[in-house]
Amino acid sequence: MRSSFERQRVMATLGVTLAQVEAGRVELELAFDPKLTQQHGFMHAGIIASALDSACGYAAFSLMPADAGVLTVEYKINFLAPAAADRFRLIGTVVKAGRTLTVCQGDAIGLRAEKRQLVATMTSTVMAVHGRNEVRQ
Amino acid sequence: MRSSFERQRVMATLGVTLAQVEAGRVELELAFDPKLTQQHGFMHAGIIASALDSACGYAAFSLMPADAGVLTVEYKINFLAPAAADRFRLIGTVVKAGRTLTVCQGDAIGLRAEKRQLVATMTSTVMAVHGRNEVRQ
Amino acid sequence: MRSSFERQRVMATLGVTLAQVEAGRVELELAFDPKLTQQHGFMHAGIIASALDSACGYAAFSLMPADAGVLTVEYKINFLAPAAADRFRLIGTVVKAGRTLTVCQGDAIGLRAEKRQLVATMTSTVMAVHGRNEVRQ
Amino acid sequence: MRSSFERQRVMATLGVTLAQVEAGRVELELAFDPKLTQQHGFMHAGIIASALDSACGYAAFSLMPADAGVLTVEYKINFLAPAAADRFRLIGTVVKAGRTLTVCQGDAIGLRAEKRQLVATMTSTVMAVHGRNEVRQ
Repeated sequence: MRSSFERQRVMATLGVTLAQVEAGRVELELAFDPKLTQQHGFMHAGIIASALDSACGYAAFSLMPADAGVLTVEYKINFLAPAAADRFRLIGTVVKAGRTLTVCQGDAIGLRAEKRQLVATMTSTVMAVHGRNEVRQ
Repeated sequence: MRSSFERQRVMATLGVTLAQVEAGRVELELAFDPKLTQQHGFMHAGIIASALDSACGYAAFSLMPADAGVLTVEYKINFLAPAAADRFRLIGTVVKAGRTLTVCQGDAIGLRAEKRQLVATMTSTVMAVHGRNEVRQ
Repeated sequence: MRSSFERQRVMATLGVTLAQVEAGRVELELAFDPKLTQQHGFMHAGIIASALDSACGYAAFSLMPADAGVLTVEYKINFLAPAAADRFRLIGTVVKAGRTLTVCQGDAIGLRAEKRQLVATMTSTVMAVHGRNEVRQ
Repeated sequence: MRSSFERQRVMATLGVTLAQVEAGRVELELAFDPKLTQQHGFMHAGIIASALDSACGYAAFSLMPADAGVLTVEYKINFLAPAAADRFRLIGTVVKAGRTLTVCQGDAIGLRAEKRQLVATMTSTVMAVHGRNEVRQ
């Protein structure tokens, strides 16, 4: 997983790091970056969504056979609060793992001092691509 | 609209520009950038989604009264083809404009030489925020 | 809530009953009915979705002020397993309650003898309609 | 297609008929029925969604090889206007047909006298199930 992650240049560009990995659950972390803000100085929702989609993709990947890769088919995200935080925890969890399709649930948590706030929630469908060991997004 | 767009620093960071604006329809353009790629060298799907969400938000904004702003409530995106192109046209169109909520449809088109390919399709719900002239994402 | 529920004729037609109500969480129950099956004799997915949407709407309604009603803006549902069960428990839970919009999460559980199986999962956005005490769907 | 349709008992129960079929596009029709109404006497949104999901499923099915069936993976629907009409036209169109997955777009149109109104719009993902000639929902 780490090697797949490191080959995604966008992750370094956005400042996303792999925080925690277990079977069926992956946590990424995203630091606040003024270059990625909207006009209020909050992180742009799309950046949160990108990182959360990746957390879901890697959660699915964690349950795949060694020769499989994953590909995001679709996702739906609801934005629940402005992304006003110092850093974000992106938690992807597998809801249902299938041979071809895996459904994941993602939560983006804003962290500032002691405060944790759910800023977005996602459902995504990812497809296993056999014979290609990768996460494609 | 241009002034709101320019205050979104993320748009400059991602290389998104305003290409065409009419009432209820906005086209953005996104250039290929190797810093925003996944491991195959294609643009990361999340970046396409971010720009497409913005095209939808600005399409909704184009029909709002002068003192209103917009806020993305949620979106759903299907990825139809790898984002293998030199640049992308992000087309946001209003399907139904309401006083509080507006529903938009977005298409991301990959452009390479003469070829045009639909790479993603989105439906988004945006909320008018009265008294705040802005697009918040 | 019971009075609103009883005025929805479709609930009686589909055989949906109110099973459990608490603040921010509502459970409905749906019995298997051969008239609502697809060609394998399982309950049609759309019927499961209808009842689950209602569970979410009533969960939102349970947190609204007395003079407010709710209206489903949109939902997204993933079907995880065939609806092969004797009855279904439809669980709607509020994820984020707002003044105008409430986001809910719904799970449809198939029940057969001792077996419980998650058959579908939903995210829905519902809008409060002030001055109208009802659930409109 | 007609034989698959006729084996879905729920279609007769809800009063859904096959109106028009071409490659990649299917139109169903649903008559108003007081037994399927919510408390305002409009058709329940879930019934509209069920029929629209079917229109999308059959549109995908129309492009499949003869031995394949389809299964709805997920859909997302936005409700744009109350379902206040005498009958409804449910139009499913294929956006992208793939070997495994097909993405469809659906529009539900309310018809009353000369008036046509878009009441809901859907995006759905359906999966081809090879070796089983059917639409499963």
